[in-house]
Amino acid sequence: MSLTLSKQGNLMCQNSPMIKLAKDINMSLASDSKQWLNLGVGNPLITKEVEEYWLSVIKSISAEKVAQSVMSYGSTSGDLLLRKTCSELLNKHYGWETTAENILVTNGSQSLFFMLNNIFSGQFNSDSKKIFIPALPEYVGYSGQILNQDGFDARLPTVKNIDDKEFIYKLDIENCHVNRREHGAMILSFPSNPTGKCLSEQEWQFLVKAAENEGIPLIIDCAYGNPFPGLCHQPIDFKMLPNLVYSFSFSKAGIPGSRIGIAVADSALVANLSLSQCNATIQPNAYAQLLANQAINHHDLSRFCHQVLRPMYSNMALFAKTLMMDLFKGINWKMHQYSGGMFLWIQFSDLKCNSQVIYEEAKKHKLIIVPGDVFFFGVDSSSIGGEQCIRISLAVSERTLIEGLSILKNIIHKLLVNKN
Amino acid sequence: MSLTLSKQGNLMCQNSPMIKLAKDINMSLASDSKQWLNLGVGNPLITKEVEEYWLSVIKSISAEKVAQSVMSYGSTSGDLLLRKTCSELLNKHYGWETTAENILVTNGSQSLFFMLNNIFSGQFNSDSKKIFIPALPEYVGYSGQILNQDGFDARLPTVKNIDDKEFIYKLDIENCHVNRREHGAMILSFPSNPTGKCLSEQEWQFLVKAAENEGIPLIIDCAYGNPFPGLCHQPIDFKMLPNLVYSFSFSKAGIPGSRIGIAVADSALVANLSLSQCNATIQPNAYAQLLANQAINHHDLSRFCHQVLRPMYSNMALFAKTLMMDLFKGINWKMHQYSGGMFLWIQFSDLKCNSQVIYEEAKKHKLIIVPGDVFFFGVDSSSIGGEQCIRISLAVSERTLIEGLSILKNIIHKLLVNKN
Repeated sequence: MSLTLSKQGNLMCQNSPMIKLAKDINMSLASDSKQWLNLGVGNPLITKEVEEYWLSVIKSISAEKVAQSVMSYGSTSGDLLLRKTCSELLNKHYGWETTAENILVTNGSQSLFFMLNNIFSGQFNSDSKKIFIPALPEYVGYSGQILNQDGFDARLPTVKNIDDKEFIYKLDIENCHVNRREHGAMILSFPSNPTGKCLSEQEWQFLVKAAENEGIPLIIDCAYGNPFPGLCHQPIDFKMLPNLVYSFSFSKAGIPGSRIGIAVADSALVANLSLSQCNATIQPNAYAQLLANQAINHHDLSRFCHQVLRPMYSNMALFAKTLMMDLFKGINWKMHQYSGGMFLWIQFSDLKCNSQVIYEEAKKHKLIIVPGDVFFFGVDSSSIGGEQCIRISLAVSERTLIEGLSILKNIIHKLLVNKN
Repeated sequence: MSLTLSKQGNLMCQNSPMIKLAKDINMSLASDSKQWLNLGVGNPLITKEVEEYWLSVIKSISAEKVAQSVMSYGSTSGDLLLRKTCSELLNKHYGWETTAENILVTNGSQSLFFMLNNIFSGQFNSDSKKIFIPALPEYVGYSGQILNQDGFDARLPTVKNIDDKEFIYKLDIENCHVNRREHGAMILSFPSNPTGKCLSEQEWQFLVKAAENEGIPLIIDCAYGNPFPGLCHQPIDFKMLPNLVYSFSFSKAGIPGSRIGIAVADSALVANLSLSQCNATIQPNAYAQLLANQAINHHDLSRFCHQVLRPMYSNMALFAKTLMMDLFKGINWKMHQYSGGMFLWIQFSDLKCNSQVIYEEAKKHKLIIVPGDVFFFGVDSSSIGGEQCIRISLAVSERTLIEGLSILKNIIHKLLVNKN
C-alpha cells in the first residue's frame, strides 16, 4: 500500500523544523553520546538538588493513591483538586481572582498550543485567519502545529543595542498591526524561547490593548515564567482579562517526561478547550496531575523554583557571558540581553554564512548548537542579522559550556577566515 | 470578548454525543451518587483482585526509576524498551514478525484515533474522502474527532436471529462497497463497542480484501481485544499486512486514567504518526509507559487478562442474560450475542419510542443506561430496530445489575402500557 494522507494529514505529519532538529540531534548522539558536547538541549538541567526535590515528591505519594488515580477515568478538564490548587497559587502570585473554572490541565503545553493554534486559525465564517506572532524569533514548536498552509503571520522586531556586547529585540510597533479580519489570535513566549527576552511594560500594554481593540485572544506562553519554573527576571503585572490566555508548564520545573501543563483563561474558552481535549484524548494523564498537585501543596514548588532553579539558570547565563567575553576576543559577537528562560541567543555579525552552516560545522566537531533560522518561521531575517544567530542552552554543566564554547570559537574563527 | 472559533475549531470543540452523555451522567451522579444505579459506566470493573494486581505493579517500580523517567524527555514514538516489549508480546500471541518500528505508543487510543481519523479523511489531492464504517452501531468516541463536516460514511448491518433471545449483526456485504475515491480508511472496533460482536472469518476476509483492493488502511480498534485486556471470545487469525492498523489499549486492563495505548502498523505509517504526535504533544507520558512495561515484563499481564478479566466479564454477561430471561418475562426483548468486550446490547422491539426516551425515563428513576442512538452516527437505524436498543455495562457488581435491570423492567413495562 502506498501511504496517501489528506492535506491536513500531511500538515499533521509534517517534518517540522522542531522535528528535523530533534532527529538530527538524536542521531548524532545515539552512537557515541559521551564524545559529543550538547549545547542544544531542551531538557531542564537535573542537578543533584533538582533530582532530590522531585524524588521526594514522588516518594511522598503512596502507591495506593497512584493506584486509585490511574485505575479510573478522571475529569476531561483535569482533576478538580489540581485546578483549584493552581488557581489559588496563581491568584496569590498575580493577585488574580480565578477559580477552577479558569483552569484547564493538559498533557503538556504543546498539546494546549495544538488546540489553540488550530481553533483560532483557518477558515472562519467569512474570512480566513492566521495566528499573529508579534516578534520573531519565536518558539520553534508552534510551526508544525497548524492544519492549514501558511497558518502564521509573523513580524520581525527592531534591534536596540544596549552596549557593544548586548542588544534587545523590541516590538516593531509600527509594523505590528494585528486585526480581526486577518488574525484569529496573537501568540508569544514570555520569557522568550529562544532569546530570553521579556516584554517591557510598554510593549505589553500595546499588545493587550491591540488584542482588546480587535477582540481576539492574546496567548502568553509562560513555559519559563513565574511562579513555576520561575525563570522570569523582568516580570510584569499580568492581568486576568477576558481575552488573555496564559499557558504554564511543569516541564522546565523538572518533569518534562510527565507531560503536564495548564491553561488559564476565561471560563468560556476553558469549557471549549475541555471539549476539544475530550474529543481528542479524553483527559490529561493522572500521574502527572498527582505529581503537580503534590509538589505545589506539600513541597512548596514556588519556593523551590524561586530559590533553586532561578539562580541556577541566571548564574549560568552570567557564567556563559563572562566566558564568551574572554573566549570570543577578536570575534564580533553579541547576545540578546538575558531576562529569563533557559537559553542564550548569540549573534556573530561578521559571518557571511547563515546559522545552518555554523550548525553543520559544529556537528563535524561533535558539538550541537541550535541554528537560529528555525525560529524565524520562514521569514527572511537578514534585516536584523537573524541569519547569523544561534541558540545555546543554559541547562548544561559549566564544563560543557567551557568545552562547547571553546569549540564554537574555533569554528567561528575558521568560518571568518574562510570568509563564510 | 465574544469567543469566535474557526470552522475546524468548532469541530474540535464540538459537543459530541460522547461528551453530552458523559456530561449528563456526571451531572446526575455528582449530587447523590450513592442513590444512583449506573449501568452506563465505561470504566473497567476494579475488583479487589484487579486492584491488587495493579497495586503490585505500581509498588514494584522504584521511586528512582519513576524520577529518572519523568525528569527527561523521551522518544516521541514511545520508549524503545516498551515498543520492543509490545512487539514481542504481540508476535508471540499472533505469530507476527513486528519490530519496535511497527509500534507507536500514544496517550491512550483516543489520541491515536484523533490522528488516524484526520490523516485519512478530508481533502486529498483531487478527492474529498471520508472514513468508512462497515457496520453500525460503532464506538461513539470516533464521532467527535473529524475536522471536516460529515467525515464518516457508515453502513447499517443486516440482522441474523440466533434464537428468540439472541441475534447477530452481520456485515451487509451487498452494501459495503468501500472505494478509494470516496474513502480514506476503514475503521471498526473488534470486539465491538457497543454490541460485543466479533467479525466472522468470512466478514474479516471480506474487509481485508476490500482494503487491499482499494489500497486503503483497515483500522482495527482492539480496545477490548486479546492479549490485553483479553476480552475477545471469537478471535480470528489477525495478520500483519501493510494496510492493516491495529490499536491496543491498556485502559480496559485496569488503568484508564494513566492514558496509554499503542498502534501496530506498517513502519512507514508509524513514522508518520510519530511526526504527528511530536508536533501535537511531543511524546506520550512517561509514567504510563513504565506501568505498561512493568506489567507485561514482570507481572504477566497476558495471564492476568486471560485468567482474571476474561472470565469476570463473560461470567457477568451470562449472569445478565440469565437475569433478563427471568426479569423480562412478558417483554419482547432480545440481545446481541455476546462475543467479547464490556457491554451488552439489548433491543426492546415492541417499543414505539426511541432509546432517548428510555434513557430519560431511566434517569427519572435514578438509573443510567446508554441510549443506542449515539452509536449510529446520525444514520437512521429504524430498518434494523436500532432505535429501540440500549447499551448496558458489564463493569458493574451483580447487585447493581439486579437492581438496575429490575428498574429497567418497570420502565419498559410502563412505556409499553403507555404505547410509547
